[in-house]
Amino acid sequence: MIQIKKLSSADAGFHATLEKLLTFEDVHDAAVDLTVAGILTDIKKRGDEALLEYTLRFDHLDANSVAELELSPNRLQQALRDLPADQRNALEQAAARVRAYHEKQLAHSWSYTEPDGTLLGQKITPLSRVGLYVPGGKASYPSSVLMNAIPAKVAGVGELIMVTPTPGGERNNLVLAAAAICEVDRLFTIGGAQAVGALAYGTGTVPRVDKIVGPGNEYVAAAKRRVFGAVGIDMVAGPSEILVICDGKTNPDWIAMDLFSQAEHDELAQAILLSPDAAFIDAVAESIARQLETMPRKGVIRASLENRGALIKVRDLDEACAIANYVAPEHLELSVEQPEKWVDKINHAGAIFLGRYTSEALGDYCAGPNHVLPTSRTARFSSPLGVYDFQKRSSLIQVSEQGAARLGEIASILAHGEGLQAHAMSAEYRFMKGSDR
Amino acid sequence: MIQIKKLSSADAGFHATLEKLLTFEDVHDAAVDLTVAGILTDIKKRGDEALLEYTLRFDHLDANSVAELELSPNRLQQALRDLPADQRNALEQAAARVRAYHEKQLAHSWSYTEPDGTLLGQKITPLSRVGLYVPGGKASYPSSVLMNAIPAKVAGVGELIMVTPTPGGERNNLVLAAAAICEVDRLFTIGGAQAVGALAYGTGTVPRVDKIVGPGNEYVAAAKRRVFGAVGIDMVAGPSEILVICDGKTNPDWIAMDLFSQAEHDELAQAILLSPDAAFIDAVAESIARQLETMPRKGVIRASLENRGALIKVRDLDEACAIANYVAPEHLELSVEQPEKWVDKINHAGAIFLGRYTSEALGDYCAGPNHVLPTSRTARFSSPLGVYDFQKRSSLIQVSEQGAARLGEIASILAHGEGLQAHAMSAEYRFMKGSDR
Repeated sequence: MIQIKKLSSADAGFHATLEKLLTFEDVHDAAVDLTVAGILTDIKKRGDEALLEYTLRFDHLDANSVAELELSPNRLQQALRDLPADQRNALEQAAARVRAYHEKQLAHSWSYTEPDGTLLGQKITPLSRVGLYVPGGKASYPSSVLMNAIPAKVAGVGELIMVTPTPGGERNNLVLAAAAICEVDRLFTIGGAQAVGALAYGTGTVPRVDKIVGPGNEYVAAAKRRVFGAVGIDMVAGPSEILVICDGKTNPDWIAMDLFSQAEHDELAQAILLSPDAAFIDAVAESIARQLETMPRKGVIRASLENRGALIKVRDLDEACAIANYVAPEHLELSVEQPEKWVDKINHAGAIFLGRYTSEALGDYCAGPNHVLPTSRTARFSSPLGVYDFQKRSSLIQVSEQGAARLGEIASILAHGEGLQAHAMSAEYRFMKGSDR
Repeated sequence: MIQIKKLSSADAGFHATLEKLLTFEDVHDAAVDLTVAGILTDIKKRGDEALLEYTLRFDHLDANSVAELELSPNRLQQALRDLPADQRNALEQAAARVRAYHEKQLAHSWSYTEPDGTLLGQKITPLSRVGLYVPGGKASYPSSVLMNAIPAKVAGVGELIMVTPTPGGERNNLVLAAAAICEVDRLFTIGGAQAVGALAYGTGTVPRVDKIVGPGNEYVAAAKRRVFGAVGIDMVAGPSEILVICDGKTNPDWIAMDLFSQAEHDELAQAILLSPDAAFIDAVAESIARQLETMPRKGVIRASLENRGALIKVRDLDEACAIANYVAPEHLELSVEQPEKWVDKINHAGAIFLGRYTSEALGDYCAGPNHVLPTSRTARFSSPLGVYDFQKRSSLIQVSEQGAARLGEIASILAHGEGLQAHAMSAEYRFMKGSDR
């Protein structure tokens, strides 16, 4: 029998219990960090040579050159052709939907001119070159290729370099096919901290990128943290989370399976149900116990639900929304009547799934929005991965001769107030007498 | 006589010389980091009590309660009333211009509905509560209050909490007046790592925020790095930089003063001139030598220019733009004829100042765009501080019953391909027979 916590918002100390349930200690392993530091330094110094050595040591791939580790566009197209028709079709449809959604995120440059001719604006440019890390082995997910590569391509990134380890030479055809669909520009079968280092610093063969995105194990995460600054990185994700708000009128089996779909990711994943209906909570608990035995990943699901899951009785849906805002979950299901009425009360969530038919799994694969979402309550201040992560802005300022006088006086007063005389004088030179062009 | 490097892009090894010139070793002092870690732990554990102790120890302010360290809105309004009219006017005009520019950055929610009734969208919400750090003492800049507070207010941030140390009780009236103009909601006269900790974790009196922005010394920077994750942070800025591209037809004194205006910030600041006109470079060098002696901050300017400055002869303006893209400077001046023709060739820069009349100093104070800009070549992947840093996005997915079947099939195939059966089943339940609501 599975032991999942049942709580009530009316419990004494509920807030403290919830806070404790949410707390996730992101343990940084000092030994991992030290190993990674060494690998990065070595890649920076010795480039291709070091990259080949680490790839032999960790992935047991013996190549004579890094060029041998690159897969040609033809090889990727071959992987796509080799897919069963239903898989190819599903991947292509998912890609098309993700692309259509992300195209709405594209930002455009703008400017305006003031009466005296002074122009102000914001110029939007794509990143020049981006690196995409895709894990190898059993946690190798083609959907992750789509979700990271498509926003970059929509943004207009000049060159998208994918890296993915192929331990012992084992390649995941679905992942390669996804790379083909996304028109990844180059793909190297390298991984780990050495691949992150190669992308961040460049080697003789692997070009240096401006930003590195994509999930990875603790070595990859530690390496990304370390190269941040030299290159941009996306967020370093914590365990996956779902918070389901249900009015008690959805099939309990559906809700139980939705909770499983997060729990099966990872023993640290978190699945929480909020409902004002105590009988419904009992029904979901019963369904969890009954369905668990049939799940191939039942060990992981059980550990996740017992350690970090909870079924919480709330006073009403208003209170459920307030708790959801406190939790700021990665995924939030509003499995209620008239969900559009409740969504206005949600301020903090990575993605919001409205209505009984919207299982969170659709968002993972093909609904359109990104599945890379803020975890560990960071939805309070962060957003899903998007096209905006692959575009950047430059301010534009073109001051007319008349504007230089008008603005120069303001700047001069404020600069003197801050004790920065060169600032003041560089503004004054443009409008004071005796300072001709 | 000042020794500023003169280089030419035609020099042997020019690229390596440039790379070396740009390299800035961001030394993390382990002792600082250790001290900061201790302070943060203490603030987290003992809240107000610890905050009072550190404020006494570091700022020599002896208060009986943290409430005593809060300045009332009336006190801020008083500071504004106490300003000389010209300063008040300059601050208010600058604030109005910064506000007008940033209002153009405001993003809005959007959604679209597919033929089968499936709705997809992006909901934009402001951050609930933001902390703004403003340094005290001699590097106390009212312009920094405007540039950080206004985008937050334009975004609609619920509550903006400012902290600024007042060592020995010394308050900067311009800074307090700027806080009044920006309608900062609460202001505590606390600083250092203890203030960052108070904002990140909350104390009995200081409310916990969702993001902390604003510049600070190495203790503040180390504290921001450490609390990142628990709260969002803005970038941790490096030394200021300017790159001037000049066709040789701007007054050399103007250009020399523009270089000074970065150099006076900091001995590590970087000021570089690119010009195809060798005689003009000589004229600027002469102007630098002549004007330096008259500058109040000549010691800092000299150190900055001698250590990190350069006057570089380039082949032509096309090459200058290519070098600018490589450098990705924080500030870029295009002091040339028809600057709008050249701006299209610039891909990487924090802010671009077009034309001979646009001194960089105008951007620091009152042109409108933000003066918090990406440094140390991070303009390759980062943007100026903006309203977008105080808004976040949540994906919206509302799948219709028909959509659940159409998308469920795709998700099911891909989830099985990734070995995630609970994902597949939670999608299948919504459209397969026998799974009623």
